[in-house]
Amino acid sequence: MKVRVHITLKPGVLDPQGAAVRRSLDSLGFGGIEKVRQGKVIELDLKETDVLKATAQVEKMCEKLLANTVIENYSVEIL
Amino acid sequence: MKVRVHITLKPGVLDPQGAAVRRSLDSLGFGGIEKVRQGKVIELDLKETDVLKATAQVEKMCEKLLANTVIENYSVEIL
Repeated sequence: MKVRVHITLKPGVLDPQGAAVRRSLDSLGFGGIEKVRQGKVIELDLKETDVLKATAQVEKMCEKLLANTVIENYSVEIL
Repeated sequence: MKVRVHITLKPGVLDPQGAAVRRSLDSLGFGGIEKVRQGKVIELDLKETDVLKATAQVEKMCEKLLANTVIENYSVEIL
């Protein structure tokens, strides 16, 4: 089973990478950009075939390793 | 308009970050993981309100700056 995890900074947490991307896009002439935020996406192939069990397992992985839950949100999506 | 861009390594391109995440998950006791790939997600807020124009603009951004199209794939998703 394929699972995709999005990890993004919580609203209000400074995102210097996003700000740098925005400045670069501005300087390349792309106008009309209000905000840019950058995050991570992790795609996992699991042997587990039960959707609920896979979701629970991946949420545990996020809490323990993948996300820093003090400053980051995560969302789990079954593909 | 909110747009999300996924940037992932092309199949066959080595992904040391993904491999490191996989080893760490293994060593934390999470079994049954077949593959891990790590990529980037960039969320943009654009002033543009036309879906086609926004998509075309973001694809140009990917070609010019956001993705290294030699080794990375990108996909644009309107939120």
